[in-house]
Amino acid sequence: MSENVLFKYGVFSKTRVEAFSDGIFAIIVTLLILELKVPHLEHPGSAQELLRALGTLVLPKMLSWVISFLTICIIWVNHHRLFEMLKGINIVLFWLNVMVLLFVSFIPFPTALVGDYPRNPLAVASYGIVMACAGAALIAIRLYGFRHRELLKETVQFVGYQKEMVLAFVFGPVLYLSAAGLAFAHPYISFTMYALITVYFMFSFVIQKAHHPSNG
Amino acid sequence: MSENVLFKYGVFSKTRVEAFSDGIFAIIVTLLILELKVPHLEHPGSAQELLRALGTLVLPKMLSWVISFLTICIIWVNHHRLFEMLKGINIVLFWLNVMVLLFVSFIPFPTALVGDYPRNPLAVASYGIVMACAGAALIAIRLYGFRHRELLKETVQFVGYQKEMVLAFVFGPVLYLSAAGLAFAHPYISFTMYALITVYFMFSFVIQKAHHPSNG
Amino acid sequence: MSENVLFKYGVFSKTRVEAFSDGIFAIIVTLLILELKVPHLEHPGSAQELLRALGTLVLPKMLSWVISFLTICIIWVNHHRLFEMLKGINIVLFWLNVMVLLFVSFIPFPTALVGDYPRNPLAVASYGIVMACAGAALIAIRLYGFRHRELLKETVQFVGYQKEMVLAFVFGPVLYLSAAGLAFAHPYISFTMYALITVYFMFSFVIQKAHHPSNG
Amino acid sequence: MSENVLFKYGVFSKTRVEAFSDGIFAIIVTLLILELKVPHLEHPGSAQELLRALGTLVLPKMLSWVISFLTICIIWVNHHRLFEMLKGINIVLFWLNVMVLLFVSFIPFPTALVGDYPRNPLAVASYGIVMACAGAALIAIRLYGFRHRELLKETVQFVGYQKEMVLAFVFGPVLYLSAAGLAFAHPYISFTMYALITVYFMFSFVIQKAHHPSNG
Repeated sequence: MSENVLFKYGVFSKTRVEAFSDGIFAIIVTLLILELKVPHLEHPGSAQELLRALGTLVLPKMLSWVISFLTICIIWVNHHRLFEMLKGINIVLFWLNVMVLLFVSFIPFPTALVGDYPRNPLAVASYGIVMACAGAALIAIRLYGFRHRELLKETVQFVGYQKEMVLAFVFGPVLYLSAAGLAFAHPYISFTMYALITVYFMFSFVIQKAHHPSNG
Repeated sequence: MSENVLFKYGVFSKTRVEAFSDGIFAIIVTLLILELKVPHLEHPGSAQELLRALGTLVLPKMLSWVISFLTICIIWVNHHRLFEMLKGINIVLFWLNVMVLLFVSFIPFPTALVGDYPRNPLAVASYGIVMACAGAALIAIRLYGFRHRELLKETVQFVGYQKEMVLAFVFGPVLYLSAAGLAFAHPYISFTMYALITVYFMFSFVIQKAHHPSNG
Repeated sequence: MSENVLFKYGVFSKTRVEAFSDGIFAIIVTLLILELKVPHLEHPGSAQELLRALGTLVLPKMLSWVISFLTICIIWVNHHRLFEMLKGINIVLFWLNVMVLLFVSFIPFPTALVGDYPRNPLAVASYGIVMACAGAALIAIRLYGFRHRELLKETVQFVGYQKEMVLAFVFGPVLYLSAAGLAFAHPYISFTMYALITVYFMFSFVIQKAHHPSNG
Repeated sequence: MSENVLFKYGVFSKTRVEAFSDGIFAIIVTLLILELKVPHLEHPGSAQELLRALGTLVLPKMLSWVISFLTICIIWVNHHRLFEMLKGINIVLFWLNVMVLLFVSFIPFPTALVGDYPRNPLAVASYGIVMACAGAALIAIRLYGFRHRELLKETVQFVGYQKEMVLAFVFGPVLYLSAAGLAFAHPYISFTMYALITVYFMFSFVIQKAHHPSNG
């Protein structure tokens, strides 16, 4: 008993781990805007020059900002759904969660790379690789949960859904790695794929909901 | 039942969505100060030169900082009031909320634009357009709530107040778009209007309170 | 009743206002470190050159960083104690709280000014003026609470302590304004006073505790 | 009783202190990524040049970023375990906690120093010294808790574990100071030691858990 209290290796306060994670998600999602720099204008008062500058200099960065913003929100949704199934968090789950947060915290760097070098295949590929890593870390949490059912809430049932869910989750990293690879054919292909993957995941949630009307 | 747990598309933890949103609001409102740069002085020890530099270089940025700070707090108040009426958050509400957060997270960029180019009509207009978008996203949440009354708390009553509220809420974006448009007549007109809209909303809350003394 | 719910002007969720405020305090206190820039070295591998650079370039900024960090924590303690006495937060208290947060969010700017121009009297004075404003906003909350006792918890008793507390609170802004004024005699006098005020408030809490042993 | 409420020097809301601390931990851990700058490329479209730039310019910074990220998470774990044992937080514990947060908030600076001057012994040593200080502040909280058992939860038992825990905790700062000292022999020795200490602490938690299977 005293061991249980002094060495609390097994049990974490789920509330504090969630607060710590939510804080990191919220900060990363907002830090991204710092990459959007005000363009330099020859004629500070010219609306036309600003419009042109926004169109050529800021627009590509703005697009990668929107995609990163929405993608981090998608990861947050997955993170949230995963943690809703967990009864408690032990030290292994904690460090797997840190891996998710590590990759999420890294997202501003490839986002900046893509924004600065939108035609560089490696820059564009790095974005997809980091997303795939974040997704893989989420899969690791899920798999660990399936092997340690005592950590899951009693209401979680996995006969039948186990395979389906693993597939659906593996789907994300595989999609991102494919998109990353296609950057070496043409960067704009994978750029388009990143945007489509984001839109796909946003709508897949809504569509799946329609198939489970009891969840309304 | 198992579906309900494994595929939690329908129900989000309101606490975590609020924590995530509050984190984003708090970060954006504080990141704005990073735009206020220390001016360069020829004579580092001269109080007069610093006073002149603060007056000419920093003051316009400081004004747009104060207005943005207060406006984000106003959006926070509206967000808070809206979420107080909600019983739960489903996936559609979640993504509408992400839209609010997306536009709020974008505010530092037009704020920096206005601070750097206070006489550029497009820069000044962009500020109002982003504010109108954030307001429109809040209206979308409100409308969705009115159509899905099962998501609202039982105590929320909308006969009579529905129209009034929609009007009041639509009022914000329309005001901001008008102010944005007037930037092309003269930037300072819309700058003044942004300040007045902020003051108006701050006081409208206090005044409306006086009309509903039971809410004290 | 429906008014009470639809127009929630009177009552805020204390938890969310505190979470919003805590987020802002936590961000401001950590953003300050961004002002500490890595010095440029002629010989990147020279420990001696780095030591000299840290001593001359970084040390003054480090000192103003420590003082600002501790001062924001003192303001947080006062904010926390004030909110512990409040039963609920109405719209007026909310905007007074926004004023506190506005001045706290502004602190990085005078901190950077003092760090860059430690010998400029206006720079050094501006630091104390912002601190006095933050303190004044806290006093405003306290005074509003005393006039609207229905917002205070029943256990709060103010006969006798009212004057004492107001004096103690007014003490802070007056001290800071005096220190700010002395910057025009010599900046280092007020710099020293800022440090002493911080130490004084840190220890005053501990000493006062000793006088009220039942609070252990 | 009125004293107890008006002068709440003795008791803090543990929830708000934890929220404030978690916010600071989350922000510091994410601010670190801002040090990772996009490298300048002669040929923006060249994947090879980007690969080379990432390898030479970004990799050392990336390594120090990963180590700092994981180390802050280790400190968070220790902080969390410590606070789980506490029943309440008095003013002394609060200021000791502020010392932990002060050193944690400082970590971005030595991390940037190490990233910019990986071969400068003082830069590399400074990193270990700050980590040792953060660890020492945690030890101070622990020691204060042992002397004021009324602040600990009743379930905490320290006969036998007291010495062991103090040793284990002191171990951290001593390891970091040794690693810091070895920077003057060769910076890469202590760089390697920092990495090993991080790995050691990550796995020590998991291993210790295996010895206390009841904590699962």
